[in-house]
Formats: sequence, C-alpha cells, structure tokens
Amino acid sequence: MRDVHAEAPARGHLRLRSVGVAGIRKPLVVQRADRQVTLAVTFRVMVDLPSGRKGSDLSRNAEILAEVVDSTVTRPVDSLESACSSIARELLVRHAYATEASVEASAEYFLRKGVSEEKRSYEDYLLLAEARAVREPDGAVRLSRAVGAEAVGMTACPCAMETCRAELVREHPDLAGPQFADLPMISHNQRNRTRLVFELADAEEVEVDRVIEAIEAAQSSPTYAILKRGDEGAVVLDAHRHPKFVEDVIRDLLAGVPERFPELPDSAGVRASTVSEESIHKYNVEASHRLTMGELRRPNGG
Amino acid sequence: MRDVHAEAPARGHLRLRSVGVAGIRKPLVVQRADRQVTLAVTFRVMVDLPSGRKGSDLSRNAEILAEVVDSTVTRPVDSLESACSSIARELLVRHAYATEASVEASAEYFLRKGVSEEKRSYEDYLLLAEARAVREPDGAVRLSRAVGAEAVGMTACPCAMETCRAELVREHPDLAGPQFADLPMISHNQRNRTRLVFELADAEEVEVDRVIEAIEAAQSSPTYAILKRGDEGAVVLDAHRHPKFVEDVIRDLLAGVPERFPELPDSAGVRASTVSEESIHKYNVEASHRLTMGELRRPNGG
Amino acid sequence: MRDVHAEAPARGHLRLRSVGVAGIRKPLVVQRADRQVTLAVTFRVMVDLPSGRKGSDLSRNAEILAEVVDSTVTRPVDSLESACSSIARELLVRHAYATEASVEASAEYFLRKGVSEEKRSYEDYLLLAEARAVREPDGAVRLSRAVGAEAVGMTACPCAMETCRAELVREHPDLAGPQFADLPMISHNQRNRTRLVFELADAEEVEVDRVIEAIEAAQSSPTYAILKRGDEGAVVLDAHRHPKFVEDVIRDLLAGVPERFPELPDSAGVRASTVSEESIHKYNVEASHRLTMGELRRPNGG
Amino acid sequence: MRDVHAEAPARGHLRLRSVGVAGIRKPLVVQRADRQVTLAVTFRVMVDLPSGRKGSDLSRNAEILAEVVDSTVTRPVDSLESACSSIARELLVRHAYATEASVEASAEYFLRKGVSEEKRSYEDYLLLAEARAVREPDGAVRLSRAVGAEAVGMTACPCAMETCRAELVREHPDLAGPQFADLPMISHNQRNRTRLVFELADAEEVEVDRVIEAIEAAQSSPTYAILKRGDEGAVVLDAHRHPKFVEDVIRDLLAGVPERFPELPDSAGVRASTVSEESIHKYNVEASHRLTMGELRRPNGG
Repeated sequence: MRDVHAEAPARGHLRLRSVGVAGIRKPLVVQRADRQVTLAVTFRVMVDLPSGRKGSDLSRNAEILAEVVDSTVTRPVDSLESACSSIARELLVRHAYATEASVEASAEYFLRKGVSEEKRSYEDYLLLAEARAVREPDGAVRLSRAVGAEAVGMTACPCAMETCRAELVREHPDLAGPQFADLPMISHNQRNRTRLVFELADAEEVEVDRVIEAIEAAQSSPTYAILKRGDEGAVVLDAHRHPKFVEDVIRDLLAGVPERFPELPDSAGVRASTVSEESIHKYNVEASHRLTMGELRRPNGG
Repeated sequence: MRDVHAEAPARGHLRLRSVGVAGIRKPLVVQRADRQVTLAVTFRVMVDLPSGRKGSDLSRNAEILAEVVDSTVTRPVDSLESACSSIARELLVRHAYATEASVEASAEYFLRKGVSEEKRSYEDYLLLAEARAVREPDGAVRLSRAVGAEAVGMTACPCAMETCRAELVREHPDLAGPQFADLPMISHNQRNRTRLVFELADAEEVEVDRVIEAIEAAQSSPTYAILKRGDEGAVVLDAHRHPKFVEDVIRDLLAGVPERFPELPDSAGVRASTVSEESIHKYNVEASHRLTMGELRRPNGG
Repeated sequence: MRDVHAEAPARGHLRLRSVGVAGIRKPLVVQRADRQVTLAVTFRVMVDLPSGRKGSDLSRNAEILAEVVDSTVTRPVDSLESACSSIARELLVRHAYATEASVEASAEYFLRKGVSEEKRSYEDYLLLAEARAVREPDGAVRLSRAVGAEAVGMTACPCAMETCRAELVREHPDLAGPQFADLPMISHNQRNRTRLVFELADAEEVEVDRVIEAIEAAQSSPTYAILKRGDEGAVVLDAHRHPKFVEDVIRDLLAGVPERFPELPDSAGVRASTVSEESIHKYNVEASHRLTMGELRRPNGG
Repeated sequence: MRDVHAEAPARGHLRLRSVGVAGIRKPLVVQRADRQVTLAVTFRVMVDLPSGRKGSDLSRNAEILAEVVDSTVTRPVDSLESACSSIARELLVRHAYATEASVEASAEYFLRKGVSEEKRSYEDYLLLAEARAVREPDGAVRLSRAVGAEAVGMTACPCAMETCRAELVREHPDLAGPQFADLPMISHNQRNRTRLVFELADAEEVEVDRVIEAIEAAQSSPTYAILKRGDEGAVVLDAHRHPKFVEDVIRDLLAGVPERFPELPDSAGVRASTVSEESIHKYNVEASHRLTMGELRRPNGG
C-alpha cells in the first residue's frame, strides 16, 4: 500500500512546527489518595514535521492515546499530567522524524465541598495539564509539564461599594457614624473564573486540590451548589467583606503561592488569569500575569 | 442528469416533518424609522417532505435566501420578521411537494443607550423572528409569525437581601432604626438574559425596540457599556432597589405587556423566558411562561 | 428569618409554567450489566409555581440533586433515566405547591468500539434522558420519561455521487461499462450527528447501547478513533456504498425501530433528528421527525 | 469620591502584564474601495498595570471604544486594523501609568462569491486584527499590528484516496488501465477552517480580500452557499483533484505568500493554522506554522 504520508511534499518544503489531532475525548482513570476518579479528558496532541515529509502519521497519535488512556481503566495513572508526559514521550518514539511533541489536556473535575459538613455536594472545576517532549541533538529526550486548574467563584467590586457607600451616607447621614465604618455596602458581584497553572520540570508534582484551594482563597468568595437561606446570606456577606477587582484576585493569588507551594523551585513558572463576568456590563473584565517562582519570592515580586 | 431527490426512498416511506438548512449566515439590510441597519442573521429554513420523495431540493432554500436576503443590500426590508415571511411563502412556491414551511432567524442588534445622553454607546441585543407558512387543502397559504428580542441586564436577589439585612442588624443594632427601613442591603446580583416573543398573525407588527424596553424595565436594572464611577453606583443602587427573582422578572414583564402593547389582539401568543447566571452558584436559575394576550388581560391572568 | 419566597408576588399574579435550575453539573455512577460508569451529567430541573407564591424554593432542587446523584457514588443507579425519575418524583414531594416537575439530563458516554477487535478504543456519545412528574387532582403522581442518545457518524451524498459519475463517465467513457455499474464514485461526505429518543411510560426501559447501534446502522458509516491506512479506506468505501441524505438517515433509522425495539408499546413516542455538517457548504443540513411506535408499525408508517 | 483604583494594592505589589475588558461587541463601519461595510466586532482591550496601583481605570477602555468605534457610523475607518491601532494608541494616552496596550478584534465578514457570476451569494468569513502600543523609555510610542482572516473550505484526504484506489482496482482490475491513472477516487472530505495572519509594522497594509483568496486557493476547494446539482459535482471533483492533508494546506498557503504579497518586508511575521473537521473521526486534525517573510523567501523556506 502506498505510504502517501512518507512522500515528499509537492510545494513549500517547510518544516512545520505543529501537526496533530485535537478535540479528542477519552476517559482517564486517575488514582488519588483516597479514591479513583474517572476524568473525561479533551486532548490536543501534536508533533513537528520535517521539511522532506508530506504528512504526519496521525493514526499513531490516536493509537498512543488509546494505549495510554484506555489502559488506565484497569491500571489507573497518578495524575492527568503524568498521563500527558507518557503520551508526549511515546509520541517521539513513534514519530521518529519528529523533534518536539506537545500534549494539552483539560478535564472537568468534581470535589465535594460546602458551607458546612452536612451541606457538602459535588462542585465542578477544570483540570489543566500539558506536557512537552524535546529530542535533543544527542538523542536524549527532555520533558517538561504544566499543571493547573480553573475554579468558578465570585467577586464583589470594591469601587462600586465605596461609591454606593458615599451615596447611601448622603441619603442616610446616620450611616456616617463610626459604628458603621466596617458595614459592607451594596456593590455589583458576579461569577469569576480564575486559573492557576504551574510550569514544571518533569519530575515535579503539584496537587491540584491545593491549586483549587489557592484559587478559591483569592476570590471574594467560593460558590456552592447547596445554599439554604442563611448560607446564602453568609456567602454574600463573605464576598462583600472581601471585595476584589480582577487585579486583586491575581495579586492575592500570586502573593499566596510562595507560602502554599514552598516545595516548588525558583525555576518553576507560574501563570495566573482571571475573568469576571461583570453583572453591570454585558462584557467581561480580565487580568493575567506570568512569572517565575523565583521572581515571586523576591521582596518586590519580580 | 439523474434527479436523485425526486426518486422514491429506499426504506421507510414516511412523510418527514422537517428537512432543511440551518446555521446559514446572511447579511440583511433593514430600513428602520431613522436609519438603515445591517443585521448578520442566522437562518434555519425547513419544509416537510412527502413520503414518496427521497430528498428535499435544499439548493432552493439557499437560492431563496440569496434572493430575498441579498437583495436587501439595494432594497432594504421593513423588518427581520417580514423577511422571514417572504422566505416562508417562497419556500412553498418552490417546494411544490411541501405543505409546511418554517423559518427561524436570530441576529445581533445594536442600540445606542446609556445612563445619560452623553454616555450613550452601542449596547448589543438579540433579535428573534420566525415565520410559518401552511398550504391549506384548498391551496391557499396561511402565514403566521413570531417577533421578539433578548436583552442582557441585571438581577439582584430579594431573598439574600433580607437574610443579609437580618444578619447585619444583628451585628449593628442601630440598623434596626426606622430611618434604615428602606436602606438597600447587600445581596447577590448577576447577569440576567430575558426574552420576550410575540406569536402573531402575518399582518401584525411589533416594534422590537419596544420589546427591548419592556424587558429592561422588568429586570432589576439594565446594564451599560460606559459607566463612570458615579454611574456604577447608580446602576448598583437601582438594581438593589428593585431586587427580583427570575419569577419576578417574568411576572413583571408579562404584567406590563397589556399596557405596553395594547394594539395586539387577544389571540396573540406571548412567550417569556429568563436566565440569571447566579453569582453565588456555578449554575443558572431559569423561569419561563407562555400564554395568550387574552389570558394576560383577564383579571387573574390566565 | 423572613421567607421571601413564600410571600405574595408584587405584580402579575400568574401561575408560572417552569421555574428551576439549569446547567448544574453532577457526577452520577451508573451500574451497567458489566461495569460501573461515572457520567458527568448536566441537569435542568424545573417545577411550576402557583400564582400566589413569589418564588420557588430552588435550594431544594440542588438538595435533591445532591441526595439522589451524590449518593450513587456508593449506591449506583440503574440508568440516567431512572435517576431522572427519582428526582422528578422528589421534586413534587418537596415543592408541595407544585403540580408538575420536569428533569432533563445529558451526559457524555464512552463505548469501546473499533473496525476490528484489536483496534477498539473509546468512542464518545451523548446520553439523553428526561422525566416528568404530574400531580393529578386526586393527589396521585404520574411519571413519564424519555431515553435516547446521540451518535456522531458520517454521511456521503447520493446526489453528488451520481452527478460526479455522469461527469467522470463523460471524461472516461470506459467507465460506462457494466463492470463499473456498482463502482462507488466520489461524493461529498461529512460528520453527521443523529439523535433517537423514546418517550416512555415510567416503567418502560430502553438499553442505550442498542439506541446507539440503531443510529450508527442508519448513517452512511460509523466513525472511529483508530483507523490505520487500510481501515480508513474500508470506512470510506463503506460510507460511499451507503450514500445517504439526512432524509435517508431519518427514514432508515425509523424503519429499523420496530424490529430493533419490538418490546415497546404502540403508545411510545419516537423522536429522531439528524444534522450533517456539509463539507461543500458552510452551513448544516437537518431533518427531523416525531411519531408513535403505533404509527411506525402501520404499513404506511403513520 | 474615593478613587479606589488609584490606591495601593493590599497585597502582592506586582506589576500586572494585562488588565482590561473582553468580549465587548461593537458595530464598526469600514469604508472599502467599493462600499461601506458594517462589522459586528468582538474586542479585547488590555493594558499593563504598575505595582503601586490597585486597579486599572477600565471605564476608559469602554469610553475609547465608544469614541473610536461609535464615531465610524458617521466617519468610517479604513480597516478593522486601523481602528485597533487608534484604540491602542489612545489607551496609552488615557492610562498614563501603562507602558503597553493591546487590542484584539475579530468580526464576521461577508463577501459575494459563487461558482459562477449568476450564482453569487454572500459567504461568511472571519476577520482578525490586533494592535499593540508600547511606550518607550523616552516616551515615544511604538505601534505594531496584525491583520488576517479565516475561511471555511474543504479538504479531501490524499492518503485514503490511494487506499481506496488500491482496493477498487483489486475489485475492478480494469481500473488499473492507464486511461484511469488520473481518475479521482473516493476519499473522506470535510470542512476545513484555515487562518492566515500577518504581523506588521504600523504603517503596513494588507488587503483582507487577498488574504481570503490565498486561503481558499490553498484548500482542496472553496465552498459555496448556492450549488445546483451540476455545481455540487464540480466542487466535489475540484476537491478530489486537489486532495490535501492539513500539512499540504499550510505548506501550499505559505508557499504562495511571497508571490501574492510581494510588497511585504522580510521583517513581517506570517502565522498560518488550519483545522480539518475529519468526516471519518469524531475529532479534528490540525496544523500550524509561524515564520517571517524573510524566512519564507529563502530557498529552503526557513
């Protein structure tokens, strides 16, 4: 059978940076400390392609996914990112012509949380993992990975709160009294989606549940599926006692990282991004930053 | 050339209710009172198919769209719904074997609005239009249509407001004073998307700008692109002075319809639906209702 | 604490048809014949609301979901639809003021399939389930449900195939020879998404794997994650040997239902819909039909 | 009124790379050679934020958009990218504390095209534009921009075509005759979305209609809204006479760029990416590359 992929390209003898499959869904079984979790993962799996070759053997990408991922039903993996590393390494084995392989994965992830023990229920988050394998000139393969998560929580605006306070004090002069100095005032609040991703060497590990905790601690408040009447009030109060711009979410999140993740080396990269789906506008407000653990640990934060 | 569509189907000699094209995008020029507007419309255009025919001539659907829609660049139509009616009528002409034709259209629509004259800017809405043509046994064609819009605004929760009031009064007993009886208290607030659609006979008209006004009047507050510091406070205050459940949005919207649209006959249908993207949950809260103008005009509302 | 939901509405004393939560994601563990499956389900959970009550107690919807769904981690349910029935029934218990409850659920579902035993891998499908509970005037609760699935496969166009045949015979007159009468010719082919849903009384069951088999048998060909070079050719040949319009997909699917599902009563409803993401157009082609098993079993198909 | 944005941040004294608004929709009127076009644009508008400042004055972003964009209703701009440049420049004027501003814009764009003059109709494309303004240490502002488009067309697979040829020759040995050497054989074909974007200095211009032409020339075939029976065959034949992997689409697209855009300097960047929505798989196949015009013009293509 003619191997069309291995023929020379007709035009444009270019090495291509990235060729592969995307949007492929697979169930992955992960063994966590206390339980097995089945993730429904979306993969994007790419290699480069040398200039002399017409096509990349993409059926190998699907085969590797099937072998690595499908086998976890009987032999669970440690984490989504370790599955990504295995896939990236195997891509360079089976695409002998390739020098770089990249794997991106995302999966919904459920954790039981709640305002109190008896009101716990599954909340949904997003896991993010990446792996990259590079074939060095001497044939050695160097791996790196990224691990992170996205959590939906809530922000309340600190600026509108002060504007409303000024207006309400004007209408109700008694509110200017010192006993009301810390009274949380009305403001706009909204859904906020925040991501934290660490860029690591292949052996380094980060527990995603701690990533999610870090994110929720940086929002005005986490949100929950089950909120009885009094709980709703408590969440709303909590959010208004911690009013935050998207800028505050990013800075508070990053400021907490050195203490929360002391084991990570200075070389680790840190990416944070956040989106508030503003209730007073039809559009979103966003902020993002990227730096290294080393920069984050310096007195003036890089 | 063989006309495969006109052949008999191989199996399953069923009349099919609906066959056609969907997700087709077209620019439509509409002449409004004061200006021409170019809408980028998504169309869904369907006819039924008799049991003896293998396929519907779908290229005719695209041709009719091209003729009716593309021609508006030089000869604008009155409204999206009148374009839908023309398309529905023409579908029955060119699909001689069909007895029903339906057209659904949606398009983004920009209106200049703002908290004040000098802060007006384009806000985006969604226009909704439908038309249905039925070929009666005597060959006559009967047309009906639907016209509506969706607007994004804001809701503030009336329940969490009272729960927070109770808690804050507990912490600050002075707040129990009568001078604070109408003080708007903190609550969760969020983006709310509300739709209002009228089901009409073919000749009946509804001005969509008035539909959008009706929707925005039923939300806790409209939202705007340009809000300087004081404006933000005013919008937040307005929303908290009109706290609403999704149930309130639907009822207030429907309660206002008889006065806002007195020209509509009792036979007209009214559909209302609303979605609040709850800031304190990761999921949405929805409400919907459907009734006739006649039911709405009765003392106890149908 | 003030119960704002139980107060009378300010305006518009209307009974509302539908109030509830949507887009809520939950992990559900289902016990199948041979294995446990964890589904990540999107729920929409609604009840009606009487005219005298301002709001529906929506926290109860989330509580019921948590109880019914979260408990399956330790006690798996039989099926997604039986979970929906339990939820619908419980909604009427806890919303004593409601007379109708509806639950809609969808979930990604993985099945191991392949062109051959050794090339099996997980393919992704969509499960669909609904339940409806109605409180009769005498207080009895009547339940009904719907069960179905969506599968992505492939269609090849029978019309373009004949047009291309005519043109290629013109260019290559030898192709007119009788030995080429059944030669599959080039055509456009594309991704096709098809749904089959059964509307059932509460006790009736349909196995979703058989629903998926019925759908894949009605498309020009199923599609697979792992296709080596020869397999690709075989799938392409299979699709071109079964060229189908969307109309053919619906009719072939429905024609096969009486034989595939003989146990279903004449009263069961059958809904079928299909979308081909046409490769030669930027828009989609769709067809749908809806009838009863009884109509489908009659000689001329309803 | 308290200016909360200008206060010092509570924690995390970090300069943030990017803060702004996203998903804001605006109508923009563009004057083209032969006609005015109204684009419905999605903007993302960001600036950086110094470490000593709590928040970015985001209302200024919306004001600038309103001024630059809304004014085009009466004074059309030359292009989407020139509007982006104006916005980026103005962002640095009104955010005096910022050193970098970025604007990203995308808009649906309609062009009349067809298989023949009398079958022309509007086809929809996506315009892409970016602008970046950097404040140099000496206070000068340096601008750069990116301009491009995405077109949906069709690819037919060259590998499956040869596999099917081998199988059909086995079944029909006469097909091995030399008269059938160029007979296009069945293959899988599908929707393909391809992007080409140029990274330019501020003064440099690229006409987007030529970008769209370049993309459509690199796909197996463009696609059209109106195709009568014979036209369908012609498009299918054209695609199968130019079978292409995603790798071929990228290489053919890039190989044609030096001749199609001779006016662009060697310093210009070129980004190409393509996605084929494979008809034989449930997932997509992708390829991308990025290089400079200078690299593209060298004999071995960078």
